[in-house]
Formats: sequence, C-alpha cells, structure tokens
Amino acid sequence: MAAKDKSRTDTLVRDKPIIGITMGDPAGIGPEIAVKALVNDEVLSICRPLLIGDAGVIREALKQAKIDGVEINSIADPKDAMFNRGFIDVLDLKNVDLTKIKPGQISTHAGKAAVEYIKKAVDLALAKKIQAITTGPINKKAINQAGFKFRGHTEMLVKWTHTKDYAMMFISEPFWVILATTHRPLKDVPRYMSKKRILRTIKLAHQAVLGYRKKKPKIGVAGLNPHAGESGLFGKEEIKHIKPAVEEAKKLGINAVGPISPDAIFNLANARVFDIVVAMYHDQGLIPLKLLAFNKSVNVTVGLPIIRTSVDHGTGFDIAGKGWANPRSLIEAIKVAANFAK
Amino acid sequence: MAAKDKSRTDTLVRDKPIIGITMGDPAGIGPEIAVKALVNDEVLSICRPLLIGDAGVIREALKQAKIDGVEINSIADPKDAMFNRGFIDVLDLKNVDLTKIKPGQISTHAGKAAVEYIKKAVDLALAKKIQAITTGPINKKAINQAGFKFRGHTEMLVKWTHTKDYAMMFISEPFWVILATTHRPLKDVPRYMSKKRILRTIKLAHQAVLGYRKKKPKIGVAGLNPHAGESGLFGKEEIKHIKPAVEEAKKLGINAVGPISPDAIFNLANARVFDIVVAMYHDQGLIPLKLLAFNKSVNVTVGLPIIRTSVDHGTGFDIAGKGWANPRSLIEAIKVAANFAK
Repeated sequence: MAAKDKSRTDTLVRDKPIIGITMGDPAGIGPEIAVKALVNDEVLSICRPLLIGDAGVIREALKQAKIDGVEINSIADPKDAMFNRGFIDVLDLKNVDLTKIKPGQISTHAGKAAVEYIKKAVDLALAKKIQAITTGPINKKAINQAGFKFRGHTEMLVKWTHTKDYAMMFISEPFWVILATTHRPLKDVPRYMSKKRILRTIKLAHQAVLGYRKKKPKIGVAGLNPHAGESGLFGKEEIKHIKPAVEEAKKLGINAVGPISPDAIFNLANARVFDIVVAMYHDQGLIPLKLLAFNKSVNVTVGLPIIRTSVDHGTGFDIAGKGWANPRSLIEAIKVAANFAK
Repeated sequence: MAAKDKSRTDTLVRDKPIIGITMGDPAGIGPEIAVKALVNDEVLSICRPLLIGDAGVIREALKQAKIDGVEINSIADPKDAMFNRGFIDVLDLKNVDLTKIKPGQISTHAGKAAVEYIKKAVDLALAKKIQAITTGPINKKAINQAGFKFRGHTEMLVKWTHTKDYAMMFISEPFWVILATTHRPLKDVPRYMSKKRILRTIKLAHQAVLGYRKKKPKIGVAGLNPHAGESGLFGKEEIKHIKPAVEEAKKLGINAVGPISPDAIFNLANARVFDIVVAMYHDQGLIPLKLLAFNKSVNVTVGLPIIRTSVDHGTGFDIAGKGWANPRSLIEAIKVAANFAK
C-alpha cells in the first residue's frame, strides 16, 4: 500500500506514458483489481495511470480491497490528473447509481456504464491524450442487454477506430499466441479460414513481436484439424488455406513454419522453438495459454491505430465484492501497454 | 538390458496377464520401441508380453536399439510362447519383405502389414488367448493406401468387435481425458454433438474410472464453444445438448459438472477438481494432455468387449531407424493394459 504522506511529494515522472485503464463492469472484480493495480509500485514505476470509471464505485472498491491512505481525485479531463502517489486519478463518468448494481449480478445499468468507459478511452487515445489503453473485464451479456451488439472489447475497438486488419494476441512466457478468429461459435470457424485471413494474421504476429522485442520472430502456424488434417484425411483447410498462407509469408521474408499438428505445436513453442503461435480459433490458443500462464498472460489487440492491452480473465462475478480478486493480470497488462507505448 | 543366461531360468509368472503388443507400421518407430519395452523390467514384472508382428523386422529393430543378449522366439500360436527373460516371443505373421520398406517412408506394404497385426490381436483377444491389447503406432495414410478405409485403430477395433458405444480415453496424471468425438474434421464436430452422444461419453468415463480406481469419479464436462457458449452468444450446443446430458447424468447418480469453459476446465482438472474431463473434440482434449503429459499418457479405447491401450504418439517417421525412439509411452500403455486386465 502507498503511504500517503510520503507519496504526495513523489510526483510520477512526466515522461512516462499515460495509460488509460477502464474500470470494467461495475458489478465485477474490475474496480477492485484496478485500485489494487493503481497503488502497485511496478505500475507506478513504469507509467502514469489514469483510471476511467466511476468515482463512487472506486470508493467502494477501495473499501473492499481494504486500501487505506489513498485518496480519489475525481476529474472530468485528463489534464486535471495529479499523477501523485497517494492519489488515484479517476476520469469520472459519474454513470453508476450504486443502488442499481449488486456485486456479481449481470445488469443493463452496469453493462451500459462499462461500454461508456471503453468509448471514452478510445476517444482519448485517438486524440493522443493518453498513450495506451488497458481494459478491465466486462460481461458480454450485460453489454448485450444494454443494447450494444458486440462480442467483446475487440469488436468495439475495431469499430470505433475504423480498423480493418486486426487480431487478438496474447503476450506470455514462454511463447505468445495470436488468433486467426476470435469469439466465433466453433461451427463457424472453418468458413472463416482463408489464405488471406491467415496470411494477415501471420503478418500481424511478425510485426508485433518485431516491434516489441526488436528481433525477427520464429512463427509456428497451427493446423485447424486433428493432426493438421493428416494429409487431407481429417480435413482440407490445411491444404487449401493454411499451407498456401505460410508459403506466401515465407516469400515475404517472414520466418513462418506450418501447418503443424495442433496437439504438438504448443509443446514445440513451450520448448522455445517458436516465439509465437498462430492459432486458428479461440480455444486452440487459449486452452494451452491458460494452462501454462493463468493470470500471467496479457491480451493485446494488434492492428489498431491505438495501443490496447487487457486482462486475460472475466468479471469474476463469483468472487466480486469480497476483496479476494488478484490484480496480477491487470498489472501485467498495464506494464505491457507501457512497454508498447515507450 | 536383460542378461540372457540369468534370465533363462527366470520364467515369467503364469498368473500374470498375457498382453498382445502390435508392432505398428514396420517403417516407423513401433518395432524399435516394442523391443525396448519388451526387455523392460517394469513390463516384465507386471505381465507376459507377446509381440504380434514380423520377426525379420524385429531382428532389425534389436540391432537399431543396440540390444544384445536377447533372442527372438518366432511362433505361430500363442501357446508356443516361452515368456522367459532373454527371449522376445513374436507371433510371427511373416508379412514383411524387408526390401519393400524403408525406415520413415509411407508404403502400402507396411500399411497392410500393420493392419494385419491389429486384426490378429483382436481375434486372439476375442478368443481369450490374450487378456489385453496394446497397440504400436500406425500411419493412417499407409493403411488407407493399402485399401483399409479406417481413420485409425479405434475404428478398426470397433468394427471387428461389433461395438456400438465406445470412446477414446487417455489415462494420465493429474487427470484423465475422454473424447466425445475422435478424428473428425473440425467442421464436422458440431453436428456430432447430441445429448445422447455426450451422455454416453459421460457414462463411459464414469465406468472406466470406477473400474480402474474403484472410486466414484468427479467428471468435468467441457463446452464446445469459446467460454462454453457464453449463455448462447457464442454458440448454442451447450444449451441444446451438453447441459441436458450433464443433467441427465446427475439424475443417474453420476458426479458430473458442466458445461465448463474449455479454456478453464483443464486448469481445474490440473488442480484435481476433476478426475476426468469429457472433451468434445480431439484437439480440445489432446492439446492440454500432450502439453502436460507428453509421452506419459496412455490411450485406452473404452466400451469395447476387449481391453485395448495404445501409445500416445505417431510412427515418428522422422527418427525411424535411428535408435533414438523413446519407449516410455509404450511401456506405460502396457502397464495400464495389465492393470485393466487384472
């Protein structure tokens, strides 16, 4: 915990990037992990954090998290942020009526508020008032109930930034993962397979690792089917789409290999044969990632004109309001955002 | 390595089960791992192993594996087996012309031979001349080229034993996995989802763990879609088929829970919340299994009238003939077969 009296004199350095952190669904663990992260020394040493949310909810979260000696600086414009230890700067949208939400419960009210934080963050990032966004967890049912027809953050960010080529990527150890398709029902995944989409994802992977690590990455490309189709016996997408995309990427000078059997590629990546795995669908990438790096991976949307990272977990409605939530994933996400912004 | 002179006096105990071990594709690592396993003390202490294959190939494999002091007992009937240390009993189908195969190469000749070992093993098991089968790795392209329209071992065993309800299961630590569908192209998986199929798989899981461990298992049932469908937003199979199957299983007194998000269930199983996970498709189960237990899991076909276990890897054509192959998975598979047979 930051000790207020000492910290007030310790203004956060002005050349560090400002990271806008959205509070997430007010009824989830988002507010609690946000306040825990915003008094964390790793976070304060790498960036100037600006919480985008509702001050009333944040006040409650400080109580839940049992954080003393920290004051809330409720502001309407980022230029009024203090960025001083001992304070949490909240860009206060004043959009939550505390009597209308209950920890752990899906509500239209909470869903609407959560979307407004993201919209505000995107506007600020596009206007260069903040250098990156880190998003807290939202509940998709709540935002849908509130009338927003999005499958998740990514779709909102893509729409509001008018982005065409993008992908969900996860930064983790010992390997990163990027997804060729996102939150699609499994039955729809095969018809999203195309040489164009897979090549685009390989390129985004290449650019992202190159930009972050300043070295040309080794990229492993997974198959779609069992045993990567077993030469066409268990599916043809490898022959029709994935192999041609890998060949094309190689011609462009990208170090890509594949398609590789989905049940073998993550062992190879785990042994550091690849820096990043191109997974064809959500669970193909997320099952191994969460197994190896639960709470330690960071979700990055690549291809956007703005930098955006995210926690790798949901709203945790089962433990919301109890003070038990672990801020580790949010802390890592803020650090990655700051590193990309540098 | 078994020392011949000492071992010849050491006849393997008669009350141990006879396990028929099929040699697999003659051009793969099957013969090599078979001879390595058949001189292994863990194997010899738990069963009487009978290798079903071709003596000429096995002779070559002994050289590749640099195993000295072991003789081959080529027989035509299991009753002629010696089951003595220092000998490998080979039920010799004499079906390989060594000039027609080359290590690491797919061939019709090898594919045909590999199928014949399996057919022989099934006939012996149905006639109770052996108590269980452990199968070495085969190449699906080779068997298809040889004119056999099977996707793998399981489909052969099911056909030749006239089995209706069966499933592929993997015994491993810290959890087991059973598959609701096997080697299907991913695009076909959703239409194989039905309450009936999933309930049948849950029941097979329950019976298998109960039979092996003599305790009622805790069963986790995975969803099909990202986030287990997120209340229908990312797919309906959970609502239509999986949840009703879990409810029905509970009514039958089975301790089943689900559907659970595919990217969370394996973390729970890894923390021993479940004894076994019911996975909806091949890679959903095999990706986490191979990541956690590569070369240590054992494939069991449940629901057959005979006991059958298998290695968890392929023919290893890239390292065939080099003497580098690791017999660990085969050894574990033989041990599990012997335990089921007891």
